[in-house]
Order: sequence, then C-alpha cells, then structure tokens
Amino acid sequence: MVSPVFYQFDRLIILDQTLLPGEEKYIYLETKEDVWQAIKKLQVRGAPAIGVAAAYGVYVAIKDTPAYSFFDIARELHNTCMYLATSRPTAVNLVWALNRMEKRVFEIGEEVDKTLPWEQQEKFIKDQLLEEAHKIRQEDIDACKAMGEHGLSLLEKGMGILTHCNAGTLATAMYGTCLAPIHLGQERGYDFKVYADETRPLLQGARLTSWELAKSGVDVTLICDNMASTVMKQGKIQAVVVGCDRMAANGDGANKIGTGGVAILAKEYGIPFYMYVPTSTIDLDTATGDDIVIEERDGREISEMWYDKPMAPDGVKTYNPAFDVTDHKYITAVITEKGIVYPPYSENLKKLFE
Amino acid sequence: MVSPVFYQFDRLIILDQTLLPGEEKYIYLETKEDVWQAIKKLQVRGAPAIGVAAAYGVYVAIKDTPAYSFFDIARELHNTCMYLATSRPTAVNLVWALNRMEKRVFEIGEEVDKTLPWEQQEKFIKDQLLEEAHKIRQEDIDACKAMGEHGLSLLEKGMGILTHCNAGTLATAMYGTCLAPIHLGQERGYDFKVYADETRPLLQGARLTSWELAKSGVDVTLICDNMASTVMKQGKIQAVVVGCDRMAANGDGANKIGTGGVAILAKEYGIPFYMYVPTSTIDLDTATGDDIVIEERDGREISEMWYDKPMAPDGVKTYNPAFDVTDHKYITAVITEKGIVYPPYSENLKKLFE
Repeated sequence: MVSPVFYQFDRLIILDQTLLPGEEKYIYLETKEDVWQAIKKLQVRGAPAIGVAAAYGVYVAIKDTPAYSFFDIARELHNTCMYLATSRPTAVNLVWALNRMEKRVFEIGEEVDKTLPWEQQEKFIKDQLLEEAHKIRQEDIDACKAMGEHGLSLLEKGMGILTHCNAGTLATAMYGTCLAPIHLGQERGYDFKVYADETRPLLQGARLTSWELAKSGVDVTLICDNMASTVMKQGKIQAVVVGCDRMAANGDGANKIGTGGVAILAKEYGIPFYMYVPTSTIDLDTATGDDIVIEERDGREISEMWYDKPMAPDGVKTYNPAFDVTDHKYITAVITEKGIVYPPYSENLKKLFE
Repeated sequence: MVSPVFYQFDRLIILDQTLLPGEEKYIYLETKEDVWQAIKKLQVRGAPAIGVAAAYGVYVAIKDTPAYSFFDIARELHNTCMYLATSRPTAVNLVWALNRMEKRVFEIGEEVDKTLPWEQQEKFIKDQLLEEAHKIRQEDIDACKAMGEHGLSLLEKGMGILTHCNAGTLATAMYGTCLAPIHLGQERGYDFKVYADETRPLLQGARLTSWELAKSGVDVTLICDNMASTVMKQGKIQAVVVGCDRMAANGDGANKIGTGGVAILAKEYGIPFYMYVPTSTIDLDTATGDDIVIEERDGREISEMWYDKPMAPDGVKTYNPAFDVTDHKYITAVITEKGIVYPPYSENLKKLFE
C-alpha cells in the first residue's frame, strides 16, 4: 500500500499529491521551508499525514543546524514549531505533533548523559527526536489499522458506501482513517461498492480517493458532490464514512467542505453517518464546532484552477471555505482507534481520555 | 437584457452558451440537424429556451423544403418533431412546443384559403408557422415577467438568495424563471445578495448564472455545490430559488442534478425553497417524480471535461445523472406565471388548468 510520508535514506520523502492521479512522484523535503510549503500547497494533506510530516519537519530543521548546547537545539525546534504551525490553521494534528516534539525535546534534555562530550550529546538528542517522529508515524499506522477494524464491525458485505474527500492511506501514514475499513474489507472479500464524491474545489475525491481505491481493486464510482442525494435516494448507499480534521468536545466535527451537507442528507434518508476521528484529532479544549476556526482559501481555486478555459466571469466574487462543521446530532457514531463512541458525545468522548 | 434565442433577418440565432463566459458568440441554426445538435450539446439549454428553439427549429426545417401540397408540409413538420424530440428526453417544454407546432399546422390547414394558387397557400402556411414560433417566444417572455412579479412578492429587500444551475434569462426567451424576480428586484433596488452554486459537472452556475447576474449588476457570489449547507448555516440565505424541467402532478419536480439535495438542506435550516415552474413544464400525465425519466450523460463530463490535466484516474467508473427529482414535501411554493401554488400540490396544481 502507498504511504504518502516516510523517512528513508536519511531524507524526508513525500508523495506529491498535487500531481495525482496523472503522475506518482515522490519528492524530498530538505528544509523547514520545504515542509511548510508542502503542507500549505497540499502536496501532503489529510490531518494525520500533516502531523507526521510536521514531526519529521521539526527533525529536518534541527538536523543540520549548528548547535553548541541543548538550548540551541530547543530554540531552533521551538522556532520551527511556531513556523510550521502557521501552514494550515485548522488541522489539530499539526499542532498536536508539533507540541509533542516540543515536549519531547525537554524530556530528551533530561535523559541525555551530560558527562559526554557535546558532539555525542548532540547526536543523542537529534537521534531521539528522529525516533519520536518515527513513533508518531508508527502510532498513526497502528491507529488506522485499529480504526479499520472497529469500523468494519459496523459494515456488511456488499454494502454501498459513500465517502467525501480523501481520508485514505494518502491522508495518513498508511491505511487511512475512514477508508481503512474499506481497504481491510477488500482484503477480506467484503465487495463494497464505494461512491466517491469528487469534492470540489480541489477534487480530492476524484484525484485521490478514486485513485487509491482503484489501486487496491475496490469497486469505486466517481460522482459529483451534488449527486450524493440522488445515489442515497436510489438506495445505493447503506453507510457514509468520512474523516475529521478537528472534533470539538461536544462531537461537532470539522472536515472537508461539504461533509456537513452530506450528513444532513444521510439523516434525511436514514443512512448511518460514521465519522472517523483519531483521538489526536479530538480537541476537548474546543467546546463546540462554533469555536473552530475555518480556513478560507483563495477563490481562484473555484473559478480558475484546473480549467483550460475561463469557467467563471473574470473577477467574479467567490467564497471558498475549506471546511465545514458537521453538527454532532447528525453523526451516528465516532470511530476512533480506541473504539466506537456513540452519543451523547459530550460525555462519551471525554471517557476516551480517562 | 440578453436573449439566448431569437429570429432575426430571416434566421434563427442563438447565443452559444457552451462558450460562456469566455466568449459571447451568436450562431445561426440553418437546418433541423443544427437545431438538434445545438440542443443536444447544450448550446441552447434551459427548458423554456429549448422549447422556443425547437419551435423555430420546426419552421427552419419546413421553410425551404419543397412542398406541393399541405400534406408535404405537415409530413415534414411531423418528421421534424419526431426527430427534435429525441435531442433531450427530460425537458417537457421541448415536447410541448413540438406538439403545439404540430397541432397548429392542422389549424392552419383549415384556415388557409384553398382557392388561392398553391404558392400563396404555401407562403401563408409557412408564415403562420413562423408566427406561432414567435408567439411561443413572446408568451415565454410574458410568463417569465409574470413569474418574476409573483416571485418578488415572496422576497424582501436585502435578502440572501441561493440558486442552483441557471434558470435565468439564458434559460428562457428572456428574464428567466427563478432569476426573473432577481432581475426585476435589481431594477427596483432590492439589493439581493445572491449565492450561485457552480453546478457540476457542466458549471452552469459558474459560467451562466454568475455571468448573467453580474452583467445585470447583481451582487453575486460563486460557491461550490458542497458549500450550500455552510452558507445556509451561517445565516446568509433567506430563500432558495430554482427552476424546473418537469413537474409531476403531485408536485415532485425534476431539475438539474443537485437541486433535490439543496431542497433537503433548506428544509433542515428552515429556509423557504421556491421552485419556478412555467405551466408548460407541469405534466399532469406524470403522476409522481418516480415516473420521470432521468437522462444519464457521458461520465467524461465529470472526469475529463474542462480540465487541462488528468483529474481522475484513467478509466475511472462514473455515474452522471443530469437531473434529480425534488420531492414535493421539500417545496415551500411553486411559482408559475399564473400565480403562486402552495401545497397540497396534487389538488392545487390541477386548478391551474381548469
């Protein structure tokens, strides 16, 4: 299975997802600026994959930085974290991974044997930081596998499944969140019929989900976002699975623009709506979805991008929010790596952290 | 105001809407094959405009056909109607306009002075058929104006209005159906804030609605289809206005794919949903929306069209229905040229024809 972020031959490597599905190209990220750009430009995207890339980005930044004391490293690491945090404001995993690296460096500062010569201390500290990034990646893979198993227990063979955007292997270290049960089901002969919303304006469903699922041999049909209601009405859909970029304490979940509308449609047609939410994405400090800052992106993504001729009048006014918030009342269950959470979310999400 | 179909200098002229918004080009349709192609390729689109184009298309076909008797004309007219009816199966106005031309030719056959030489009879018959096409066009303009007045009575100054696809002046002879109140309101200082769904896959909202409204000076904002839920949730929308391609006797209305989903969202947010339905679009012979045949179009409209690089994997499976049916239970009111119809539609639509 494809992995979109990994560290190999002493280099951070990502699959440039802006080139998919036309080209499967891997690129090196050599500096923190490279990492910032790659996140900003969505070359790496999906909350968990962004977190993994950011963690390695911290290591990339300090790896070759000259340091004459622990505090030189800690300072550069702190600056890198502040900087990388600005690349995408909505994804909680980004900040979560950066905070974890920042916390870890001080633990390492305690652990390091200060009687050693500085060069050896420096190597130990940097190696330990790389170890931490590796751990974040491996934990993500394990979490995705676990989510896949929990999610699969809610699905039946032959079901029609609708998904929006891409919360697949391409959005994580591997397996994906909401596509993990589909990948696992495929290996076990579940024979799902998947409908992938194309997901305007950036077409993650067309470019990424249908690519990744077809590559795994899944029966996938691409539709426009505005066809979701029709395939539901026709009885083609028995479950909706989506990812999540940030879930508030009350179960409101921010995800790719359009998710909230799909949830309302699913409720209207009596179809279960499952949101896949790694616990790193749950933000108990955010009370409700109203408190989640929604990134607004350049309107030319709607009016100009992709097209080979003008598709909207020159200078047309646009509005381009990148996410919306799905109200918790539309979410049938939240699938985490620790298990399935049912309403009332205000009570039950908290228990995950006890 | 732009008119997309008119007859001038003895020629049928249409605005080629496939070139908008980049180019405002008018083309001549010289044969029935030209007219068939123009309807099929959506160079002329929107149920009422298709009806007008088809009526003129009938005249274009018989105009230069050699005829030695009334029945030569009637036969060619009948063949043309059978042929043009195949260009777009869903639009009821197409069949309605063709039936009207076919009925009219027999009336003319009665009216013509059979004591005149054949050449003069021929001229009379053909002139009368052109007159009938002109009448269909003028009646559409009058109907649109009337719908605009009725619709405007339901709206208030400064309202935010969402629309899907294009049921504007470009879809009719002039003024539009659901955009007529917006054009009229603009002349009277209503200061609406219009949100136009881009309407995938053919982007009629981006290419046509935002072009036509901006041209009239309306404050219009282009959004992706999957953002409709968000702008409603944010309180930006006080009414939804959409057109209709065919309404069944129970009030179920077929319109551009995505309309049905918007209606469900509007209901969920408590926003009134108004469907603009010229009476020529109401088909009392069709009991419910389940009986409406939905045209399925080439999936490459989703996966390839418009793009300058591959936006979906090669050979991806697609599903591309061109319309969906909005269940009557989601429609707050049906606006016709004869007035506003409220539920129960099964009873009240019938009254329009009494």
